[in-house]
Amino acid sequence: MKLSIADLFEKVRERKPLVHQITNFVTVNDCANATLAIGGSPVMTSSPKEVKDMVSLADALVLNFGTIDERSLEAMEIAGRTANSRNIPVILDPVGVGATPYRTEKANELLKKVSFQVIRGNASEIQRLIGGEIVTRGVDSEELEISNAELAASAANLLDSIIVVSGAIDAVSNGKHTTVIDNGNILLTNVTGTGCMATALIGAFTGVTDDYYAAAVAGISTMSISGELAAENLQQNDGTGTFRVRLIDAISRMNKELWMNGVKISEEIAN
Amino acid sequence: MKLSIADLFEKVRERKPLVHQITNFVTVNDCANATLAIGGSPVMTSSPKEVKDMVSLADALVLNFGTIDERSLEAMEIAGRTANSRNIPVILDPVGVGATPYRTEKANELLKKVSFQVIRGNASEIQRLIGGEIVTRGVDSEELEISNAELAASAANLLDSIIVVSGAIDAVSNGKHTTVIDNGNILLTNVTGTGCMATALIGAFTGVTDDYYAAAVAGISTMSISGELAAENLQQNDGTGTFRVRLIDAISRMNKELWMNGVKISEEIAN
Amino acid sequence: MKLSIADLFEKVRERKPLVHQITNFVTVNDCANATLAIGGSPVMTSSPKEVKDMVSLADALVLNFGTIDERSLEAMEIAGRTANSRNIPVILDPVGVGATPYRTEKANELLKKVSFQVIRGNASEIQRLIGGEIVTRGVDSEELEISNAELAASAANLLDSIIVVSGAIDAVSNGKHTTVIDNGNILLTNVTGTGCMATALIGAFTGVTDDYYAAAVAGISTMSISGELAAENLQQNDGTGTFRVRLIDAISRMNKELWMNGVKISEEIAN
Repeated sequence: MKLSIADLFEKVRERKPLVHQITNFVTVNDCANATLAIGGSPVMTSSPKEVKDMVSLADALVLNFGTIDERSLEAMEIAGRTANSRNIPVILDPVGVGATPYRTEKANELLKKVSFQVIRGNASEIQRLIGGEIVTRGVDSEELEISNAELAASAANLLDSIIVVSGAIDAVSNGKHTTVIDNGNILLTNVTGTGCMATALIGAFTGVTDDYYAAAVAGISTMSISGELAAENLQQNDGTGTFRVRLIDAISRMNKELWMNGVKISEEIAN
Repeated sequence: MKLSIADLFEKVRERKPLVHQITNFVTVNDCANATLAIGGSPVMTSSPKEVKDMVSLADALVLNFGTIDERSLEAMEIAGRTANSRNIPVILDPVGVGATPYRTEKANELLKKVSFQVIRGNASEIQRLIGGEIVTRGVDSEELEISNAELAASAANLLDSIIVVSGAIDAVSNGKHTTVIDNGNILLTNVTGTGCMATALIGAFTGVTDDYYAAAVAGISTMSISGELAAENLQQNDGTGTFRVRLIDAISRMNKELWMNGVKISEEIAN
Repeated sequence: MKLSIADLFEKVRERKPLVHQITNFVTVNDCANATLAIGGSPVMTSSPKEVKDMVSLADALVLNFGTIDERSLEAMEIAGRTANSRNIPVILDPVGVGATPYRTEKANELLKKVSFQVIRGNASEIQRLIGGEIVTRGVDSEELEISNAELAASAANLLDSIIVVSGAIDAVSNGKHTTVIDNGNILLTNVTGTGCMATALIGAFTGVTDDYYAAAVAGISTMSISGELAAENLQQNDGTGTFRVRLIDAISRMNKELWMNGVKISEEIAN
């Protein structure tokens, strides 16, 4: 599998997939720059008046819940249905689901209306997305008694989607196979938007392959490895500002060789 | 007082207060990153549908007038009232008040509906916020005949809130005591959002102490000292882009020792 | 002409023109920082409730189509008409026009209601803005059979505005005279917002001179030369993150001398 993933870096830079993203106003600029850095072409419009036409040009669609409101939810539904009818991949980032009833309710509504090929969140968000199925074992992601790999596999079966659970250990599962990635750096949690950017990267990779599982692994591992590269050689007076700049640097440099050398796919489980 | 302020840096990084910010779309990403850099946990949602639930989880609320519209003002009122009823601190950043009648009117309306524990603005904004009381002495902040310290003290009494007037000299006052901080660098005026970020920092500190006065001094002085640190050792070809990166670096590095060594609290006045 | 342009750098830093920008939520922070870097004073409010009052304070108005919706279009119309009645320059950035019927339709509507002194876009956007006049020669900007200079001159006559076509070669035309600028770096296409920032710079320069043609050349060439300066001395591990920081650095450093040394105005055509 590693080789088929590694080849995606060249592919995404050759084909420059158009990645339509209806996302939040906090990290929208970061998501656009991350998409450009990996080789994709971002378009971030969210007006219900034109998302149908824009999705018709796109190679992938990313829906991000960071700052949902009635207008963006309307746009997400129109865009999601259009993408489904065109058979282009739709990626969900359920930011903050569980934090308020509004988010949880709206995410559940959207899951019924739109088919998602990949969903990426942290353990808490994915837990909440699958309701009471596993959540009874713990509320905060730190207290979970199940691993990200177990959670991803369960959620993949329940939601019929490829699930990416990101954290200190990232897990990708389609319910049958689960890949665990042991890369990353703690500084990734001290910069806003690293999760959103990871989802944007997944979106870019799904735009150039039918193997969405490989695309999901490529996207999340690119972010985690880039976190490691960005943290290397930080000088005494550097902090999270410099780290953030180097994170985009690393994404823009990422290629087959850097990825093969850096990735730690520590287990691959057949469920 | 210096020691009780200096201890806040460790506290904010230990407790990671949730700082709910209803802010503008220009500097929202900077505010989130500044909050993370000092150790807080930012959440920036502004949908009237969920701000009540989100504030219920928060340790502090920041309301920023940068790009107000009907929807964000509705959210600010709901969030502000909820925060007041929960007795968590509410911080106001009256960006641009005085520039248009709309801003001045809406700020005055909000002041009647929501109780603010801290208000931070530049001299011009604070002048306008207190109407004709002092404003007759001059219109532009450059022409003011009263010092930031005098303005802060007067405004604190009139608005019954801790007032932070930021500028070349920063002043914090509760109407009885006034603290003057003589830190900063001119480059802070050449990067957008440094005022907004200072308010976000104040918000983070108020989330970990009941001494909002100390929190206000900690927040505004952190920004001013960080401006000094960011300007140190700039190379020949560096400009405001590099300065901005180093500003976040400095906030993320700020701690008891750096603050004690750097802060210049030049006077403390008992009114 | 070169000298009258070169003198604008000092002028813009002395006068600090207030540049009101109704722009998109993706690159709004970059536009504000670029405006500050060149010496202007940005204000980005887009509420229909206050844009009339804000424009009344402004020295120039920039309208950017990046993420248009009904509300921002309403604000643009109010602001544009107010600016026209005050005789301050109005600059249009028709981002993405042609990508969806909505954008093309709304741009055409706005062109009828507001008089624009300068319009800046890439070749594809400017082609679409002038409808079928030239667009029949090719659809994608890469396939165009006419040069940016020819396109700018034609569009200037058709739209009765100064037209800036940016690309590998930038062209500025008023229909009678056309200036071609051969500066830039390919990395400018790998960072979001470089076009929007160029338009913001043009806006700042128009705020300090009646010679909008010179202002347009100053703005677009500042971005292209800054791209060259930002790409200089990039180290092995640097990428688009560092390039973006240095781009703002370069804009903030740009002055008469740097510009005179760097600019390549390769032809000046009298049509």
